[in-house]
Parts: sequence; structure tokens; C-alpha cells
Amino acid sequence: MTELVLPTHANSLGSVFGGQVLAWIDLAAAICAQRHTGHLVTTAGVDELSFERPIKVGQVATFTARVTAAFRTSIEVLVRVDGEDATTGERWPCVSAFVTLVAVSVGGDGGGDGEPRPCAVPGLLVATDEDRALALAAGERRAQRLARRRQAAG
Amino acid sequence: MTELVLPTHANSLGSVFGGQVLAWIDLAAAICAQRHTGHLVTTAGVDELSFERPIKVGQVATFTARVTAAFRTSIEVLVRVDGEDATTGERWPCVSAFVTLVAVSVGGDGGGDGEPRPCAVPGLLVATDEDRALALAAGERRAQRLARRRQAAG
Amino acid sequence: MTELVLPTHANSLGSVFGGQVLAWIDLAAAICAQRHTGHLVTTAGVDELSFERPIKVGQVATFTARVTAAFRTSIEVLVRVDGEDATTGERWPCVSAFVTLVAVSVGGDGGGDGEPRPCAVPGLLVATDEDRALALAAGERRAQRLARRRQAAG
Amino acid sequence: MTELVLPTHANSLGSVFGGQVLAWIDLAAAICAQRHTGHLVTTAGVDELSFERPIKVGQVATFTARVTAAFRTSIEVLVRVDGEDATTGERWPCVSAFVTLVAVSVGGDGGGDGEPRPCAVPGLLVATDEDRALALAAGERRAQRLARRRQAAG
Amino acid sequence: MTELVLPTHANSLGSVFGGQVLAWIDLAAAICAQRHTGHLVTTAGVDELSFERPIKVGQVATFTARVTAAFRTSIEVLVRVDGEDATTGERWPCVSAFVTLVAVSVGGDGGGDGEPRPCAVPGLLVATDEDRALALAAGERRAQRLARRRQAAG
Amino acid sequence: MTELVLPTHANSLGSVFGGQVLAWIDLAAAICAQRHTGHLVTTAGVDELSFERPIKVGQVATFTARVTAAFRTSIEVLVRVDGEDATTGERWPCVSAFVTLVAVSVGGDGGGDGEPRPCAVPGLLVATDEDRALALAAGERRAQRLARRRQAAG
Repeated sequence: MTELVLPTHANSLGSVFGGQVLAWIDLAAAICAQRHTGHLVTTAGVDELSFERPIKVGQVATFTARVTAAFRTSIEVLVRVDGEDATTGERWPCVSAFVTLVAVSVGGDGGGDGEPRPCAVPGLLVATDEDRALALAAGERRAQRLARRRQAAG
Repeated sequence: MTELVLPTHANSLGSVFGGQVLAWIDLAAAICAQRHTGHLVTTAGVDELSFERPIKVGQVATFTARVTAAFRTSIEVLVRVDGEDATTGERWPCVSAFVTLVAVSVGGDGGGDGEPRPCAVPGLLVATDEDRALALAAGERRAQRLARRRQAAG
Repeated sequence: MTELVLPTHANSLGSVFGGQVLAWIDLAAAICAQRHTGHLVTTAGVDELSFERPIKVGQVATFTARVTAAFRTSIEVLVRVDGEDATTGERWPCVSAFVTLVAVSVGGDGGGDGEPRPCAVPGLLVATDEDRALALAAGERRAQRLARRRQAAG
Repeated sequence: MTELVLPTHANSLGSVFGGQVLAWIDLAAAICAQRHTGHLVTTAGVDELSFERPIKVGQVATFTARVTAAFRTSIEVLVRVDGEDATTGERWPCVSAFVTLVAVSVGGDGGGDGEPRPCAVPGLLVATDEDRALALAAGERRAQRLARRRQAAG
Repeated sequence: MTELVLPTHANSLGSVFGGQVLAWIDLAAAICAQRHTGHLVTTAGVDELSFERPIKVGQVATFTARVTAAFRTSIEVLVRVDGEDATTGERWPCVSAFVTLVAVSVGGDGGGDGEPRPCAVPGLLVATDEDRALALAAGERRAQRLARRRQAAG
Repeated sequence: MTELVLPTHANSLGSVFGGQVLAWIDLAAAICAQRHTGHLVTTAGVDELSFERPIKVGQVATFTARVTAAFRTSIEVLVRVDGEDATTGERWPCVSAFVTLVAVSVGGDGGGDGEPRPCAVPGLLVATDEDRALALAAGERRAQRLARRRQAAG
């Protein structure tokens, strides 16, 4: 996914407004998750989102998304955003984030009230050491997320 | 900050699109951070963002932001988003997130090249036990963030 | 309701475009009216909208809405918009307006064609002298509005 | 000025969102005022804005603007909005409003601080009885507006 | 159709972003086509779109659309866009294009699956030599378009 | 470039509004042209834009852009848009177009008035038979475009 930063995306410092980048990250994660799961998805959470260097008006934002882990009804997607000055070819890391999305189907198994319900997602083929490291870290983030949720509820 | 969810904000499930909520969270955090620091701010990161229940078209999203910790040139802001059905008065937690923002000044101390530079932020008055717990957890998140950054760099 | 003025909201003078403020006023009035009436609402009119001092890009617009009068199926809401320089804390009145909204229900009493129909709204508790003055003036505006409508019709 | 109502302009009832119409009215008034005055303009107020019948998604909104009165540095513009079902040719009045705009020049007479300053506007040729009635009513609205402003100021 | 160019429409050169003009051309063509055919329309193609001189932020874009030819289920519309400096009255040609649109009805003749289907359009009255020249050239563009499509398919 | 079609992009038939696709095509062409030329670009024209099958809300639009010819100060870019149902993996051609863009520099060679001026673009390496066929056809489109322009001028 590639976006040219227009004045309409800018904050008052002439860089792309952070919230706009967050919205694009969510979109890139959703497309990646729909392709992997074969289902509509809804965003469940975002972790470790960290900005490094801004992207200015007239520059280009490029989004790369990969699935890092598949759980029962959710997957985690790593989105990396690079800035690019298309006129010089210079590129730099702008921001990355881990986005968790839940696969849903509408009018699903036994329900029928039209509310989207979580549904099972296909497993992830883990082949390389990097794959394994990413999946392991994803599992830890998920455990932390669930622990925070239990703590908040109870 | 309060937003009425219009069809233009929706995903194809009739709820507010996750990326739109992220953009609003970033805005709410930025306003809160500008008020506390007296400076322009740029978003540095987002942690522990977790969606609980969606908000549908025609419902209202309410944003509450509070500073949880002040560091040297950055602060952490907790943004809570509640959904509200304004016609019934029902309210529910939708999502919360910790947003870290850096205070910047343009054409600042000794510089003059017009690039925004980080600048010092006022301390945070920590009065209650809840304040202390939030500031402590913020410090831990910051340590983890810096550790990840060192790891990524080298 | 609070909005940070971004470049996308600006006119060519670097202030927030008047039409954008009008759109936000209408939103703030609608949320306030839905809370009071418990119904969906549609805007019926705007009176005495008057700009005092503009809000520039990077500044904040804060909206305060209160019900000034309740009629049979409509209510009048006063929306005040203040500008704020979040970095200095300075605030100033930007614009105010009286917005009249009609409560509607869809597929309502005896209808069923799916067209929204006006429905009764709860009365307004008038406690202070200021309340009474506002409600009185609202009644006059409504009488003038109805008179203009009769005149236009025939 | 003509606008096709798209889903992005809709409220949750499937009609054009009132605030969007207000934004378009302001634009139509601004273009008309710039043509008459030969200056940039800023909106000073809106009076007697009254909705009659909504415009739905897929229908067309047509805007007609005419100058009703010219004062020293401001003019009043009447904007009428008609709905049109372009497939049947049916048309109906949707809303009308009187918009007051101030002509401004940037870096004007003796100033030079770059702030926009009010500047004189050309007179209006009043030829017909309808012209005279409109100008008379505009003068009354202006007197009321100034009276309200004096009252608010104290 | 008239549009005031706001900063939100600009590219990083301070002129209206080309893609925004294309979107407006498509809208102007669609309104014109709906009026002529009495049906909803979808865009089938664009030919000979050529920019001459840009329009800057603060200037006005005026759109004029006329039907140049009617075929069995489609029509061709010529859209001309003029720039205007509303403060000086200066006007200049900005861009023109031939847009082909197909008339469709939903749930139409014999179908019923809710998919839009092409439907017949009224003939075009060709009165003047200019009309005839435009219709002739439209027929040639259509023949070329169909030839390209056959070539691409086969 | 990849875009998820949201309700905000839709026409009243539930498909992506043609003008939105045109705006995205222009963006994709501009990014491609900036990369090839190393300069800012402005759109000069669009040819042979032809829609084949629509993309619906919830589906994905994928943009592929390649330079087909380089002239003295302009290049032609072919943009193909594919629709994709990310949940089933189905893909189909949606629309393609040839976009001509002029490379510009601001405050360039000998000028200095801040107006963007055309500047020379690098040649295009033509290696395969397909490359040669595309470049040849691009040259013909350019000749026709210049002929139409001379004819229009007089």
C-alpha cells in the first residue's frame, strides 16, 4: 500500500498527521488479515507502535504488512511504514506496529441476528527462524493483552 | 472530545472504522499534550491499544484524555473512548490506549533551520495512589520502548 | 466537543473555513438534542449565528451546547464555540448560534413507510432567570420563523 | 453550484447531513461575495436559515446565491438550495439562508502585519421592488445583529 | 457546478490536485447524464482529458457539461472546466474531457438480482453543425474504444 | 498502491464512485512519475481510460503503474487497476488508463518567480517488444493530443 502525502493529510508542522498514519496502518493490516483469513476482520488492538522519523507533504508513505501469528479467531499483523522521497529515491523507516485483528462472519454459525461473530482462522506456516521469533513474541504480547484485560475486568 | 459517528466513518460492517478511531485518539492525545506542555507535539508511539466493543453509525464516541507521566521531552497520555447511544443514554467502554508525544518547538534553541526540535516539558503533579500507579506503569512502558529501539538499532 | 484545527479545515487565509465550523456546530447541536429528546433528530433551522474572532490552524475549537427551549416536536439548542491556543491556554469566543432540531422516529406511530416522522419531545426544566430569558427569546425566534414560513408559503 | 449527494455526505437517515449543507451554503455565499466585492471574504454570520425538505443520497443539491445588500465592509448574500431528483426532473426547495460576509485584504492599508483587514465593498444596484424589499430586510437583520452584539459585549 | 479550491484540495505546488479535478469532472458528467437519461449512471470511460492551466488555492473551478452523443445504453458528455479568480473576474480554460456513462436500472427488466443493468437512453436532438461535429467525433471515439476492447479481450 | 473501498468511497449503487478511482489513478501515476523523473510532476492529460467491472464496498483496489514512454519534459504512465475480493482471493481487471505527466521544478533554471517550470526527464530503457509497442502507441497518442491542441488553439 502506497500513499502520497497531500496537504490534506498534514499537521501544522507540514508532516503527515500521526492519526492519519494510524488510520492507514489499520487499513493495511485489515487488507493483509482479510487475505490470510478469508474473512472480514475487525481491529482488536495495537501494540508497540513507534514513530522514528516523520514523512513530509509531497513525500510517499509505503506500507508493508505480514502476518506474524495466527491464534484461534485472531491474527497479529506487523505493519512497517517507510517514508520515501520519490524524487531522490531516499527511503527511511517511519513507524511500525503490531496490529491484532479478529476474523468475523456476519449471520454466522447458529446465530442469524446479523451481528458479526468471531470465526476460526487458518494456521500460519512458520518456516524460518525469523518467523519463529516473530510468532513467539506475538504470543507473549497476546498473553500480556489478555492479562491486562482480566485485570481491568476484575 | 465528542464525535457523532456518521456513515463516512463506517467500515463495511456498519461500525466505526478502526483507523478512524485511531486518528481521533491521536487528536485527543495531542490536544491534551499541548495543554500540559505548552508546546506543539508530535506522536512518538502508541501502547496497549485495545478495542472492547464497537460503536455503530448514529452513535456517539466520547474521548477522555489524561496525562499519566511526564519525562524529559515527552509525556504519556491515556485516552479512553466510550461509546454512547445518545437516544437511550447507554454508555460502554470502546477502546483505550497510551499515547506518547514529544513536545517540539520550531526554530528553537540554537537551531534555526526551521526543523522542529524536542524541548523540555513541565513535571506532572502526582497526588493520589492511582496517579502513582499510572506513572509507574508509564515508566515501565517507556523502558520497554527504549529497549526495543536499542535492539532494533543494533 | 473539541476539535483541533488541521490544515484540511483551513481556508486560504489560514483560519478554519467558516463552513467547517457550521458543520461542527450542527454536529454538536445534534448530539445535545439526541441526548435531551432520546430520538434521532434533523436540523430545522439556524438563527443568529455570528462569528467574532477566527480560529487558526493548530488551534483548538471547543463546542458547548445547551437546550434553550423545548416545543412540541422540536427543541432549540444554543451552541457556543470557543477558540483556544492550547500551548498558551488563551481562550476566546469564536461564534455562537441557535439551532432548531426536530425529533424524528423511523417507522413510527401508524406510519410504517420508513420515512422519519416528527415525534414529541420531553419538556425542559426551566429553573433560573437565565433559563427563563433563553426560553422566552427562543419562543420569539420560533414565532418569527413560523411567520416567515407562512409568508413564504403564501 | 451543484452537488451530487454521495453516501459520504449522509446522516444515518440516508439524507444529506445538515452540517454538510451548511458548509456548502457558506462556500456558495463566499464565491458570490468574492465576485461582487473583488476581495477575499470571511463569514460574519448566518440568519434565518430554515430547512424545508431533505435531499437524499443519489439526489442533487443546487445552490443559487444573490447579493441582497452591501454595507460599508460587508455584504449580505441570500443562498437558496433546491433538491433535485436528476432522474425524474423533480425539484423542491430544501433550505435558504442569509449569509453576511466581510471583505478583507491581507497586508492592507497601513498595516502590514499580514492579518486580514476589512475593506470597503462596492455598492449594490437596487433596481426592482424585490431588490428594495430584500435590501430593506437586510438592513433590519444587520441592525438586530449589531444590537445583539452590543448587548453581549455589555 | 462550481467549486472553491480549498487547501484540502491542493497538491504540494499550491494548485488543485489533478485527481481532485478528475473526481469533480466525473461528478459533473454524472449529474448531466442522469438529467438526460432519467436513470442512474456509471462511468464507462474517459477520453482526451487534457489540462491547460492550473487552478490555485483560493480560486474557483466552474464545470460545464453537455451531452455530445447518445448511443444504445450509453451517452458521451463533454465536461469543460474553467478556472476563475473570483476577486478579479479573470477566467481561463483549465481542462476538458469526454466522459462516457452507461445508464443503469437496479432490479430491472427480467432480472431481479439487484445488480444494476444497462438500460436504453433517449436519443439526442442534433440541431446545429457543432452538434453534428461533436456527435460524429463521439462516434469515432466509441468505435476506437470498442476496437481496443476487442483487441484486449482477444 | 492498494486501497480498501470504504463506505465513504461509494456511490449510491454500493460500488466505488468513479471519480474516486480517477483520483487514485492520478495519485498512482504521480508517484510512478516522480520516481522515474526525480522531479515533482503535474498531470497533463488522461487517455483511453476504460472501466470494465466495478469494485464494491469491502473489496480492495490494487494499482499497478509503469512508464510507457519518456518525451522531452513529460512521460506517459499506464495505470492498471484490479479489483480484489480479499476474502476469496478473486481478482479482476477494473479499469486502466494512460496518464501523461510533466516534470516540473520550482524556482528553476533562470526563472526564480516561484512558478513551477517544465524540466527535462531521463530517457526510458526500451528492452522488450512489449516495451517498444507501448512506446510506439504512446507516441501516437501524444501526436494526436498535440494535433487536438493546435486545432483548439486555432
